[in-house]
Amino acid sequence: MRRRHLIAGLALASSLTALSALAAEQGKPTPTTKEILAKSAPAEWRRPDPQNLLVMQLPTGRVVIELAQDFTPLHAANIRTLVRQHYFDGLAIIRVQDNFVTQWGDPNDDENGDKDKIRSLGKASKTLTPEFSRAIAAKQPWTPLPDGDVYAPEVGFSGGFPVGRDPASGQEWVAHCYGTVGVARDVAPDSGSGSSLYAVIGQARKLDHNLAVAGRVLEGMPLLSGLPRGPEPMGFYADPARRTRIESVRLAADMPAPERPAIEVLRTDSASFAALIDASRHGHNAFYPEPVGKVGLCSLSVPVRDAKPVH
Amino acid sequence: MRRRHLIAGLALASSLTALSALAAEQGKPTPTTKEILAKSAPAEWRRPDPQNLLVMQLPTGRVVIELAQDFTPLHAANIRTLVRQHYFDGLAIIRVQDNFVTQWGDPNDDENGDKDKIRSLGKASKTLTPEFSRAIAAKQPWTPLPDGDVYAPEVGFSGGFPVGRDPASGQEWVAHCYGTVGVARDVAPDSGSGSSLYAVIGQARKLDHNLAVAGRVLEGMPLLSGLPRGPEPMGFYADPARRTRIESVRLAADMPAPERPAIEVLRTDSASFAALIDASRHGHNAFYPEPVGKVGLCSLSVPVRDAKPVH
Repeated sequence: MRRRHLIAGLALASSLTALSALAAEQGKPTPTTKEILAKSAPAEWRRPDPQNLLVMQLPTGRVVIELAQDFTPLHAANIRTLVRQHYFDGLAIIRVQDNFVTQWGDPNDDENGDKDKIRSLGKASKTLTPEFSRAIAAKQPWTPLPDGDVYAPEVGFSGGFPVGRDPASGQEWVAHCYGTVGVARDVAPDSGSGSSLYAVIGQARKLDHNLAVAGRVLEGMPLLSGLPRGPEPMGFYADPARRTRIESVRLAADMPAPERPAIEVLRTDSASFAALIDASRHGHNAFYPEPVGKVGLCSLSVPVRDAKPVH
Repeated sequence: MRRRHLIAGLALASSLTALSALAAEQGKPTPTTKEILAKSAPAEWRRPDPQNLLVMQLPTGRVVIELAQDFTPLHAANIRTLVRQHYFDGLAIIRVQDNFVTQWGDPNDDENGDKDKIRSLGKASKTLTPEFSRAIAAKQPWTPLPDGDVYAPEVGFSGGFPVGRDPASGQEWVAHCYGTVGVARDVAPDSGSGSSLYAVIGQARKLDHNLAVAGRVLEGMPLLSGLPRGPEPMGFYADPARRTRIESVRLAADMPAPERPAIEVLRTDSASFAALIDASRHGHNAFYPEPVGKVGLCSLSVPVRDAKPVH
């Protein structure tokens, strides 16, 4: 029993909307995340553009990534070019560094690799203009968080992504939260092409606005985060047998419609997402004698659900 | 090459001490974490008290946990009592919830378990006075962090642990950072005994000062974080075959001296730790065109090393 009760308290389930705050303070049960989402309107959910949806097939299952087209369009375009060449097929997860990142790409494009076997990028660019941040998109809906942040002057959500902003510089960027996918690069800022990508599995905010963010994992994070950590320095696998093989990466737009991921993402400018933020901040329930009353940018996860079949 | 360069930039290695900040701003290479630690004095390191050191043997290796004796003495004492009864031997890791916690204990002490087979706590207490926070220990060395925090009014390090403080309430607590070990409990605040523990593998700051912290993992985190996530709700494993068996948990003080973990922890009130904080904050090197200049409490890890043999 103890564990189930711990769970009840630990889940986002400990929640209330602004409207129910008074009820909570009066000791009444508060709605859970599940309840908030159950009451959400269909229009509060969006189907990601299949041009922005990558499907990476691993032996263990499927990882679905939404490209951050509006933040890093040059990188999104180059990744699409690579994917359409089937560049990633047969490559591997080459690195899992504990509390940091899981990285994939060409194992030969490494100091231990066979340089003669490095896969060609084909029609894709080998270098790209850095897109580490962009001018604040004033016309995009912005859902600010009220509790501050260590790394950025302002934080919130824009277009489904966790974002940091600096009004002084006029720039914004997708933050390196859990599930953020970034573009590996060499020392030169323009050396990232998207041929090697990483997903954040731990503390990585120090990378913010120093690398280009490719997107965010919508489905399958446990397939990337639950891997054995690489035994070599920085989590590399020197032994090829330890690497996880990438069977294929496809753009959803290029897949037959029935095979495309049928998933929906809660709009971050929706009332239901605002209710979830409020729930995470106040989260009164019997399990928490002293709720923290705050929420950090990377402690909020944008909900994803199976789409209802369209007939 | 790309990956090795990415690494160079990503590691704590991108570092400088306060003394070298000027050099860094002048574009000179800055010392790495490895270099800072190589110059550290022997007196800056401590050997954890073997009365506070748990050694959990898994089939995959050893996890070493330092109990937070000064923060949660009643819980530390009860856990010692359990360990000395070999309470944990043969129990299991029962839950791995992605981006949250890995939890271990008695699989039968769950709603799917066989209640008739629940292991007795023996001489240990089934309930404990909550130790979710303590009065700020004004006489303990305090190493504050200067960049703020979302969840606590003040943060820093005390006695080797990441700590949040609230001057208004006069309380402090060990923060739920990566590697923090907490005491699972039922809804009743006094229902945690230490018979089920969890290690933080993701975002869990909302638990701060709502659960008792047992300690911190000094060695073996990848053995807890790199496990397959449980397929049941909240990361439980319903199938016993998926659980990782705990071979034994021992107190280092009860082990023959040669078998005790020979590890040292960098003192968090040392000059070298201050230099590491500074390095993490400023981290100028060629990889970062625009370093963030900040560091969060949970982005700093207190270094642990093999102790030199004593002859």
